[in-house]
Amino acid sequence: MDRLFATYHIETAHPLEKAAAVMAGEQSAGTFVKVPGETPELLENHGARVERITELETVDAPTLAGSKPPKGTQAPVYRRAEVVLSFPFANIGTSLVSAMTAVSGNLYELGQFSGLRLVDVVFPDAFKTHAGPQFGIDGTRKLAGVYDRPLLGTIIKPSVGFSPAQTAELVKTLCDAGLDFIKDDELQANSPHSPLAERVKAVMHVVNDHAERTGKKVMVAFNISGDMDEMLRGHDTVLEHGGTCVMVNLIPVGLAAVAHLRRHSQLPIHGHRAGWGALTRQPYLGWSYIAFQKFYRLAGVDHLHVNGLRNKFTEDDASVLASARECLTPMLGGYTVMPVFSSGQWAGQAPDTYAALGSTDLMYLAGGGIVAHPDGPAAGVASLREGWEAAMAGIPLATYAETHPALRGALEMYGAL
Amino acid sequence: MDRLFATYHIETAHPLEKAAAVMAGEQSAGTFVKVPGETPELLENHGARVERITELETVDAPTLAGSKPPKGTQAPVYRRAEVVLSFPFANIGTSLVSAMTAVSGNLYELGQFSGLRLVDVVFPDAFKTHAGPQFGIDGTRKLAGVYDRPLLGTIIKPSVGFSPAQTAELVKTLCDAGLDFIKDDELQANSPHSPLAERVKAVMHVVNDHAERTGKKVMVAFNISGDMDEMLRGHDTVLEHGGTCVMVNLIPVGLAAVAHLRRHSQLPIHGHRAGWGALTRQPYLGWSYIAFQKFYRLAGVDHLHVNGLRNKFTEDDASVLASARECLTPMLGGYTVMPVFSSGQWAGQAPDTYAALGSTDLMYLAGGGIVAHPDGPAAGVASLREGWEAAMAGIPLATYAETHPALRGALEMYGAL
Repeated sequence: MDRLFATYHIETAHPLEKAAAVMAGEQSAGTFVKVPGETPELLENHGARVERITELETVDAPTLAGSKPPKGTQAPVYRRAEVVLSFPFANIGTSLVSAMTAVSGNLYELGQFSGLRLVDVVFPDAFKTHAGPQFGIDGTRKLAGVYDRPLLGTIIKPSVGFSPAQTAELVKTLCDAGLDFIKDDELQANSPHSPLAERVKAVMHVVNDHAERTGKKVMVAFNISGDMDEMLRGHDTVLEHGGTCVMVNLIPVGLAAVAHLRRHSQLPIHGHRAGWGALTRQPYLGWSYIAFQKFYRLAGVDHLHVNGLRNKFTEDDASVLASARECLTPMLGGYTVMPVFSSGQWAGQAPDTYAALGSTDLMYLAGGGIVAHPDGPAAGVASLREGWEAAMAGIPLATYAETHPALRGALEMYGAL
Repeated sequence: MDRLFATYHIETAHPLEKAAAVMAGEQSAGTFVKVPGETPELLENHGARVERITELETVDAPTLAGSKPPKGTQAPVYRRAEVVLSFPFANIGTSLVSAMTAVSGNLYELGQFSGLRLVDVVFPDAFKTHAGPQFGIDGTRKLAGVYDRPLLGTIIKPSVGFSPAQTAELVKTLCDAGLDFIKDDELQANSPHSPLAERVKAVMHVVNDHAERTGKKVMVAFNISGDMDEMLRGHDTVLEHGGTCVMVNLIPVGLAAVAHLRRHSQLPIHGHRAGWGALTRQPYLGWSYIAFQKFYRLAGVDHLHVNGLRNKFTEDDASVLASARECLTPMLGGYTVMPVFSSGQWAGQAPDTYAALGSTDLMYLAGGGIVAHPDGPAAGVASLREGWEAAMAGIPLATYAETHPALRGALEMYGAL
């Protein structure tokens, strides 16, 4: 089994078999025009194969404009289907970049399709050569000293604008409040008003001091996103000051640079998916997160954002949970990453999150739920911890809140009591 | 003027001013919940600004699912608008990755929007620190020895599957046919059946031999796409064997790695946009190429694919021409790149392409139009050259074909006579 499998949802006015054959041809040995050298032998060895076509529903109007129905069609009918293609090892080898090009290249622009989405990818065993997460769930837990419950965290807010000293001051408050994990905002990387090196120095001074006093080393994900050398330097600065995590905006930085960072890195890589919506929000275009995140896991990311239940964005809960489950499902026998729940999270979503996942191997990031708690940030963090305790014990939040005032405060604040 | 400007097309059921303010807040100093430290001073210095809102049409149904109309709205009306935001230098500095995160990050997932597309970006002068194209139009012309007309080229087909020796054999035929430019397919990078180093060696042997015999060094864009170190090594191999161009699949490789390659490179970088459709095919989601290509120009790409008139894909001619014009329009006083026309091109589109652009500063890649010409590849190349001669002289193709048999053969083959 040395072939790469890719599953798509397509919509087309062409016969499904023909449309699928066009996909396979365009993304492997074929072209629009037959050319010399395109021998049966070459096609056999290098052609992508249509493995399966499962017809789905039919729609009257094309989802995406620009597609070209078969010539002479008066009232085209647009059929949807799930199509599985496979690509030979000979074309791609174990290159992540080549794999991404094969499964997602020109396909989206093919005239035959009024909809085309990559919904899953299955890599062959040959891809086990990729570094993958260096720390993953176990390594992250060990560094953070947190077991048997989610890592509770927050994002430094305002998103951008604080000086290194102001950031360090806020981090002090958040460490004192009892958090396990703090991250830079995706918008705050190495900027004129908060150069990364200065921020790392100021923040780690606080974190190290807190660790010395309490024995707890809070994990801070510093956003090192930037140019290649800038990221490697950023990583080294974080390491040098005793930091335990770096963060990268995966999409703006890109796959090859993330893989390169991984080879250099001695720290967990926290993967933020800023820009993701552009690739996914139209359900018959782009990518599912199931497919997308596999590339970055193989490249070596340790933590992956998956949004959160009842989030402030447009993604529904089923999609969030599918992403999180996928992060927790081993690939090629390993490569497990820690899903990061974020956006509108507070204790309130803990029971449903736990019930759906059956796991605490996750990061749970809250913002307003911590800093805006009526009894202060420490109560905010306590309310998250108590919410998860209740969830794990199968006790309703309202019941648990009777004896846990921090949780009660949170439930009151969110109008859930 | 040290602010970065970004223009969007949005669709929302919320009041336009409010929706635009949410965009600005989310992508700068704001968050969903007011937090301590979000002072008026900080917002003034670090907030993104809404510069302009131009209302467009109204639609009854949301283009994208998942958006949340204002609470209590019975029959929401979805208004479209063009919105211009600006971002302060203090947040971003001159980082391309940070700029991309700011203009395209979480925006696409905001609950207020049933459509959101980035249509343009204007970088402040501070971004002049970026390397940009090393060769651009003039440098490419000089290396290829082609002036006063487009560079005529082709793509090695079958897309993938030839051995290095077979590829070299085809390149020999194409050099003899008189082409200026030959490129690997985006699917053919460094693969088990055609390792880049072997392919470069075999192909450059032919190209160098041809150059010695004829004085013409055909430019071959070798697809070096892959991991960071693999790309740098690939570049060095091409350089070492006397090659004059490297090619990169921009989207799978990513922005940071492309910028890093540019700093290392001594050759023009040919930018392929495989995967682009996913980001652009829904007109109220994702990116316009106008905005997208600016990032890669600053990062240092020399040639950029723009599709072609009457192409085999879904893009319309107006969009193709807008992209090409943009490539030819200086950014920050320079950074001009060579647009690459490809997909279904033959002599037939030369007059319209020239009439619309008023320039020959482009690459014009044909496939079937060359190898399938009834009188052979040399006649195929001649037909392209003659098509452009006719276009530049303002002579109808059919008229010019009366005295130019290669062009006549092409017109007959395409049923245009």
